[in-house]
Order: sequence, then structure tokens, then C-alpha cells
Amino acid sequence: MIITVQTVLDRLIEPVGQLEPTVDTLKSGRLNAEVRKVAVVFMATYAVIKQAVESGVDLIITHEPTYYNHMDEVEWLEGDPVYEKKRMLIEESGISIFRLHDYVHRYQPDGILVGMLKMLEWEAYTNIEEMNLLTLPTDEQHTVRTIVTHLKNIFKVDSMLVVGDPEMPVRRFGLMPGASGGRSHIQYLESRNIDLLIVGETNEWETNEYVRDATDMGLSKALIIMGHQNSEEAGMLTVVEMVREALPDLQVDFIASPLALKRI
Amino acid sequence: MIITVQTVLDRLIEPVGQLEPTVDTLKSGRLNAEVRKVAVVFMATYAVIKQAVESGVDLIITHEPTYYNHMDEVEWLEGDPVYEKKRMLIEESGISIFRLHDYVHRYQPDGILVGMLKMLEWEAYTNIEEMNLLTLPTDEQHTVRTIVTHLKNIFKVDSMLVVGDPEMPVRRFGLMPGASGGRSHIQYLESRNIDLLIVGETNEWETNEYVRDATDMGLSKALIIMGHQNSEEAGMLTVVEMVREALPDLQVDFIASPLALKRI
Repeated sequence: MIITVQTVLDRLIEPVGQLEPTVDTLKSGRLNAEVRKVAVVFMATYAVIKQAVESGVDLIITHEPTYYNHMDEVEWLEGDPVYEKKRMLIEESGISIFRLHDYVHRYQPDGILVGMLKMLEWEAYTNIEEMNLLTLPTDEQHTVRTIVTHLKNIFKVDSMLVVGDPEMPVRRFGLMPGASGGRSHIQYLESRNIDLLIVGETNEWETNEYVRDATDMGLSKALIIMGHQNSEEAGMLTVVEMVREALPDLQVDFIASPLALKRI
Repeated sequence: MIITVQTVLDRLIEPVGQLEPTVDTLKSGRLNAEVRKVAVVFMATYAVIKQAVESGVDLIITHEPTYYNHMDEVEWLEGDPVYEKKRMLIEESGISIFRLHDYVHRYQPDGILVGMLKMLEWEAYTNIEEMNLLTLPTDEQHTVRTIVTHLKNIFKVDSMLVVGDPEMPVRRFGLMPGASGGRSHIQYLESRNIDLLIVGETNEWETNEYVRDATDMGLSKALIIMGHQNSEEAGMLTVVEMVREALPDLQVDFIASPLALKRI
């Protein structure tokens, strides 16, 4: 049996059913192209696509957009040298790129969250009915700082961004990878009565300022910002496992990226 | 002559004329309330409002929203203890809060930009017709790193976020305080043929990834992210000067805030 792009997509979409509208579309390539080798990535950067093309990948499954905006709109980029060079690399190689964002977040449970909980070694702490709500064991004394230390070890970074008091004790906390927005962060913090929220990315005038105000009121609230890529990249390992299991004849590789942001 | 909130607002709006729609509305208080003392701030945080109330301020002029979202919508926050406590402080004190965002950015030149150029000691480098386009003197050799060093000294921070090569030479660069969005950043980088863009805040999947790709293609592009507050707060000093000059009988104070974000 020949495996095509469509075969792989059917498997990725199947747990949810077709969404409409969705940003999860084929950004390049053809549905009936044969696939022997798949690369799963957080972001189809120029370097990632180049590496994939050189190693004979037929299909890239990417969590984030290819062209610097959520909808992958490209009209506004026409003539831009970065866009044109990236598009050229993609078109000349014939590689297929599929975005897997909305579907993987709708898996039951959320595929990104599952992969992140595994990487963060927090699977045992999740609430089984609401996996982004975590409770730390009563025989451990945690603070914002001890959790930051754990995250720094996992991500091999030397610091992390925090709003609130680093010495605040933490028992219950929320994990919201990605950039789900200020309202969603704030409503989660309040409705779940958690001490701490850990997110990927915020708008500074939203979640950050809510937690600043809460702290200045003497409420036990804190925020850790992991960075968008750190907060979701390992979540795509869920997809690697899933595609390998469903289509064992395929070679499925995960391509990790360095972080775009450096601190100097 | 009694100075009212309306008197001050008339002065703030006058250089532009009434905008419709605008987020620059009176968030609390009354247009006909008498004003003797004004506080100008980047963000009307709980701590800032408390300090203003305690020191007898009648009117706060704030650049950013009061209630954690650009439109200052509050229905979704009803019952939230942080929102309710902040609202209560504001209502019981009777203080007036006016947001000055759209107007100050529409001043000719942009009031925030003018204040930031002064603080950053870059007034001499701006293009007179396009003040956020800067050219460094030919007798100085600058790189991304030398500019970061300058910014770290100004803001008294020990690091700054960068995408691209820190050793890349810089001659022409753009300064876009705040969070003007990925399209606006990317189009500015491309259309002005600049080496470096300095911004307040980005969405990671937009500007950051464009500059990452450009760098990986060998193009001379870099990005420095100052943080939203650092990138605009000193810009509000323009407003302090303007109100003092127009209404010399008023006491006009600037209240600076510590940064909400800590790095631990």
C-alpha cells in the first residue's frame, strides 16, 4: 500500500473529525504525493525545512505557521526576500507541509499537553479530568522558585520570567502551553483558585498585569512564562508516536530547533 | 479658573482632534470634576492607583489599560476578586482615570517615541521625517551587542532578548516601542532596508521567526526586544511636560513602576 499525504492527514484528523474553519491546512505539496519519510516539528523554520529536504523528508507536520502569521496569509509578504526565498525552497523541493495546531489541541486529552507533562515529569500530578490542573504532593514543599529551578533544569536555560513572589508556596497550579490569551489565562487563574499559572507566552498588558495587581493586593498568585517554543515543542512528540504507531512503514523523525531568542 | 478633567482632556486631544473609535476614554470619574493634581503613568496598576489616591491625585493619565485588556471591557471580569478590589479602590476614591494611548501615538511626532528617543539619547540619530528610523554616526562602529549594552545601561537591566547574531554590524535601525504587531514589524524591517529592529513586545511566532529565518538565510537582520514597559514608559514624560506647560497651575507628577516581570 502506498502511503500518501492524505493517508497521514486522515490519521491526524481522525480523533477529532474535520474542523471548519481551521488553520490546519496543507501549506504546500499535494494530497496524493507519496510519503516515505515524515518530519514532525514545532515550527517549519527555513533551517528546519532545509534540513528536512536534505534528508529526504516528503512531509513536514508543523505545529506553528510557516509564514509568520497564524492564518499563514501570504499576500502581504509578496516580494519580501525572506518570504520569497522560503517559498522558493519549499516549491522547488516539492515538500509537503501540513500544519497540525487545532487538531492536536482538540485530541482527548490535548496532545501537546500530554507531551509536555511527560517532558516536565508532571504526569503524576495532573487532575485526570482536567490535565492542565496540577496538584503537588503534600510531602513536598514547593515555591515558585523550586518550580522555576525544575523548569530551568528541564529546558537547560539559566533563568525564567516570573511575575509575583518567588518564595510564594505553591500547591495547585495550572499549565497552559502556548499563547492562549489574557482572558483565558485570567479566567483560569480565578476560576480554579490556583496559586500559580505556567504559560508559554503572554501579552504583557494582560496576564502579567493581572498577576502584578493580585500580588500587590496580597493575594497568592504568581505567573511563570516559559517561552512559547519551550512550552509546546516537546508536545509534538505525541504526534511522532501516534504516526509511528498508525503507519509503521513510515520513517518519522522529530526535528528540534534551537530557541530563536537569545539573552545577551 | 477651575481646571476640570475636561480641561485636561481637551488639551490632550487638541493636537489630533476627536478620534472615533478610540480606546482613549474616561475609565472612571467625571468630566466636570475639579483637578488640582495629575499623575501621568505607563500603566494604572493597583499599586500606582493606591499611591496616587494617597497623595491626593485627582486624575490619572495612563498609557495602557486599567483592566487587563486593550478595550478595558469588564463584563468578563465581574466577580473576579482582583478586578472587584481594583474597581472598589477606584470608585471609593472618586479618582478619574483617562487612557491616553491612541492620541499620544498620533501626535506629530509620536509623543511616546519622542520621549523614548530622549531617554535613549538617540535624538541626534533620527531621520527628521521618520523619527523611528535611526542612522548611527559613521565614525562609530556598532553591533547588535554594543546597542544592547547601551540599552542595558539605560534600563539598568542585566540582559536583553535578541534574535540574530550579536556581532552583526548595525548602521540603520528601526525603533518601534510597544507591541505594534508582526506585520507592522516585518513590513518595517523589509521596506526600510534596516539591519536591526528594536521593539517593545512581539508575538513569538511572528517577528521573531521572520528574523530567525532571515538570519539563517545569511541576511543581515536582527531584533532586540526591550519589553513593553521599558519601551514606552519614559515616553509618557512627553505628556508630563505638555500638561505642565499648558496648565501651569496644576501639579503634574510622573509615577514610574518597577517592571512586573522578574528573571529568576
